[in-house]
Amino acid sequence: MKPVLSPGGLVERLHAIGAARYHDKHPFHALLHSGRCTKAQVQAWALNRYYYQSRIPQKDAAILARIEDPALRRAWRPRVIDHDGEREGEGGIAKWLRLTDALGLDRDLVESTRAILPGTRFAVDAYVHFVRERTLLEAIASSLTELFSPQVIHTRVQGMLASYDFVTPETLVYFTARPEQARRDVDVALAYVTEHATIPETQVAVLQALEFKCDVLWAMLDALHHAYVEPGHVPPWAWEPPR
Amino acid sequence: MKPVLSPGGLVERLHAIGAARYHDKHPFHALLHSGRCTKAQVQAWALNRYYYQSRIPQKDAAILARIEDPALRRAWRPRVIDHDGEREGEGGIAKWLRLTDALGLDRDLVESTRAILPGTRFAVDAYVHFVRERTLLEAIASSLTELFSPQVIHTRVQGMLASYDFVTPETLVYFTARPEQARRDVDVALAYVTEHATIPETQVAVLQALEFKCDVLWAMLDALHHAYVEPGHVPPWAWEPPR
Repeated sequence: MKPVLSPGGLVERLHAIGAARYHDKHPFHALLHSGRCTKAQVQAWALNRYYYQSRIPQKDAAILARIEDPALRRAWRPRVIDHDGEREGEGGIAKWLRLTDALGLDRDLVESTRAILPGTRFAVDAYVHFVRERTLLEAIASSLTELFSPQVIHTRVQGMLASYDFVTPETLVYFTARPEQARRDVDVALAYVTEHATIPETQVAVLQALEFKCDVLWAMLDALHHAYVEPGHVPPWAWEPPR
Repeated sequence: MKPVLSPGGLVERLHAIGAARYHDKHPFHALLHSGRCTKAQVQAWALNRYYYQSRIPQKDAAILARIEDPALRRAWRPRVIDHDGEREGEGGIAKWLRLTDALGLDRDLVESTRAILPGTRFAVDAYVHFVRERTLLEAIASSLTELFSPQVIHTRVQGMLASYDFVTPETLVYFTARPEQARRDVDVALAYVTEHATIPETQVAVLQALEFKCDVLWAMLDALHHAYVEPGHVPPWAWEPPR
């Protein structure tokens, strides 16, 4: 049996997972940030990632539905509000649609999600299923990729603004609030995880939950890279770049 | 509203879906059958597809658990038996392991499924979730890719035997019984679907269930093709071909 990790030791292991397999290590990220994507590739990224954005509040509502402690439900609730907003046109999903609008994608097509890649759909759905089916501890731990997101968002926004004439600060408004939200959210999740994962079995489960979530993000970029960077691999029923 | 299809009309539409998006249209299939795969690529295919094989009886047990009619449960039950066998070393999963053994893959590694691609895992898990969460009609309809499998198995077995010196009839024993089993199974599923999908709403649901299943098989090959045909895309934690 492995030894128990201290809270600090557990956090260190979580960071090591991010360093090894967070999606900023994926080749598509380097293309996107460095300006080496075509406009069609940026469109494909935004179109497919919309599906992820649209499912995040369902994922967080599924976690909310499993929490017994009102205080923790209150602390988790802002995640749903951040994405859905207080009224039509507000919140993270609406902001993501400003990005797809600005990229010239048809809003009905985007919202229908019918033109996304099967690999995108299966990866995102795997995340929603994971938080419903695993322990609450694992469900909460799977959100910890937010440990790594503020830095990546910074790189992405700076890189995309510098590289693409079709990208403006308004286009990327989704990302403005995200680093602060992520830091607030990760404090809640990390406090829960370090308090509840105190034996080797649960600590291993927590680490594997974060690995799983890294795999979700990685598989989404694999699908995108395969279909839209390598030529000739768009499935016949998925979005085709305009010629 | 769309008009109601006759049973024959519905079957015709099912075949049209197969003609458009069954995985024999995927570029990896052509590589595999024509002998243009390296041994490592055949190994990667067998290793990843093991995960699919191992989950099929769970998928069919999930359907079995939802059927209220004993006669239909009896008709569905052989699917589980085919894959699990009557005793250790028998059945489809054990036969698949004879393939991975013959290809020189470590059996513990294969059975652990820890070295498969995330895209494989998410696609296969999507199938298991689908049959649990959708209507029984959709769950049964999603099995109808077996309409198309006997012909593909014939092509695959002939092609692989002719092309690879590391493949023998014994290696491919899994496939020997499959065409006959598939024809028996598809008769059951098709009778159920044509009897129960008699209004446009349920007929559309049936057609979309088959599209979904085609997407599952397609996404598995996309993941495989991306990682093992295009150079440099194996995720760091997945199986690496020996050098």
